[in-house]
Amino acid sequence: MAVYTEVADEELAAFVSRFGIGELRAAKGIAEGVENSNYLIHTTEGLFILTLYEKRVIEADLPFFIGLMEHLAGKGIVCPRPVKDAGGQALGRLAGRPAAIVTFLDGMSVRRPSVGHCRALGEALARLHQGGADFAGRRRNALSVKGWRPLFEAAAPRADGVAPGLARQIEAALAALERDWPQDLPMGNIHADLFPDNVFFIGKDVSGVIDFYFACTDALAYDLAVCLNAWCFEPDSSFNMTKGQALLSGYRRLRPLTPAEAQALPLLARGAALRFLLTRLVDWLDVPAGALVRPKDPIEYLRKLRFHARVASAAEYGFVT
Amino acid sequence: MAVYTEVADEELAAFVSRFGIGELRAAKGIAEGVENSNYLIHTTEGLFILTLYEKRVIEADLPFFIGLMEHLAGKGIVCPRPVKDAGGQALGRLAGRPAAIVTFLDGMSVRRPSVGHCRALGEALARLHQGGADFAGRRRNALSVKGWRPLFEAAAPRADGVAPGLARQIEAALAALERDWPQDLPMGNIHADLFPDNVFFIGKDVSGVIDFYFACTDALAYDLAVCLNAWCFEPDSSFNMTKGQALLSGYRRLRPLTPAEAQALPLLARGAALRFLLTRLVDWLDVPAGALVRPKDPIEYLRKLRFHARVASAAEYGFVT
Repeated sequence: MAVYTEVADEELAAFVSRFGIGELRAAKGIAEGVENSNYLIHTTEGLFILTLYEKRVIEADLPFFIGLMEHLAGKGIVCPRPVKDAGGQALGRLAGRPAAIVTFLDGMSVRRPSVGHCRALGEALARLHQGGADFAGRRRNALSVKGWRPLFEAAAPRADGVAPGLARQIEAALAALERDWPQDLPMGNIHADLFPDNVFFIGKDVSGVIDFYFACTDALAYDLAVCLNAWCFEPDSSFNMTKGQALLSGYRRLRPLTPAEAQALPLLARGAALRFLLTRLVDWLDVPAGALVRPKDPIEYLRKLRFHARVASAAEYGFVT
Repeated sequence: MAVYTEVADEELAAFVSRFGIGELRAAKGIAEGVENSNYLIHTTEGLFILTLYEKRVIEADLPFFIGLMEHLAGKGIVCPRPVKDAGGQALGRLAGRPAAIVTFLDGMSVRRPSVGHCRALGEALARLHQGGADFAGRRRNALSVKGWRPLFEAAAPRADGVAPGLARQIEAALAALERDWPQDLPMGNIHADLFPDNVFFIGKDVSGVIDFYFACTDALAYDLAVCLNAWCFEPDSSFNMTKGQALLSGYRRLRPLTPAEAQALPLLARGAALRFLLTRLVDWLDVPAGALVRPKDPIEYLRKLRFHARVASAAEYGFVT
């Protein structure tokens, strides 16, 4: 939830007018995405989203994100379609920041995903992977295994203040993952942050996948591992195997997993848990006392990491061979 | 800018379904209003605003606010129209809070109002006053002269930490206002918070007036004084008499001022300046160190108060007899 940049009305109107999407009627800063400033734009042609990219997003990565969305939308995948200006450019500048306009997607994100939502998500994820396979862009996953130790080192000195023994537990998990991280799984363009916030449903169907600003080129099965963590745990931190099975079978209906992918799933799930544990921990330690915006709890992901450490095979996630 | 209350998707859908405004397609928390949580709602019938009333709004006042909007909208005045549920009720409960849905108004608020905007605002304000004249509801202005001393007393001990000599200046202004505040000006239902944020324009025309949650029954000319402060000063704190004249003549074209109103204008403008100086000062002192949301600068209103103290007659605001 964030609107970091406020844009003057004249500037906004001038920017929008370049995109051939009708006349600007209204613009509302919306609480969507934590990294960027987003405005919902109402024009005589309909609804759009205007995003101003804030400092956490590296400008050189934007053509990848925007190109991927455009590529996927062109294949009928329900993701925002970047709108191009008269010069054919989707990326512009507004209020001193890179900015883009994308189509608005109807639908609501679900707070408590059901088994049916998990199955629909699995199918949507497989479509995303299949659709992105022939996208020429490449972007290294800066938040994969090589990126974790620097995050850990930044957080380690104060980690035990968040939870006793946390630094030691992270160190042990990290060392194992650095040693065992798989190198030869099928690769592709992945979303890498497919939390329930970033998926819209209308009824039972996925109507939108948004927020491609962590998308990168990495093991496809890693995306599944992120989703297992984000969608299949209950609020009491228990893993719901029925949801896991629904997610996996939804995915596999469209894209079967290789034996190596299935075997790597527990390891990938530990990695995905550690990745969010670390970034949340850094954010948690970074917040000034008394701030009104409370970051997400890192310990939720420590519990998930611990769960995966006890998992012997993908069967425990509901993977049925 | 605020979304204080997050509402679960199922709860939101169930609430919306009672209002006969079609099927819910999307809901976005928007950065509008500082007192309440607002969602922009997209349904199969169009756009609406859902407001959850937070603790600063007194629940017993809501029927007045909602009734006034309904009354004004019924007269064709461009303000949000509360939507009624099947039982004829506009006010419901959602996520443990009072909540209402109103129609969405297109238009953009202006950061830097032009002379033309000030004239259009004056006309819109006069229409609001005329339209509200036969509304039966009454609400005392809790933030008029009798409400100022308690605010001052709350802020006084730390006021000089915000600006040296501030407490003394407020005390002097307050004592004079308490002594001289007019009691017999024409009364009516006023907006009382008609800042540029709360007025939408499409081109030169006012397309919407929102945020009636300070509306009350008070001197009509006090509303003009609030607008003189909020619309006719330049960013360097200078008063723009051309804008003042446009505002006043726009208003007077539809509703002439009585001689007593014209004469009282400098006093009312000092009062309106003190009211916002005090509430901003209290908010300023109330914010925890390091908070991300920075309250509005009270000193802007100290400068306005000082300006009005030197004004001898309404002619200096551009009032032409």
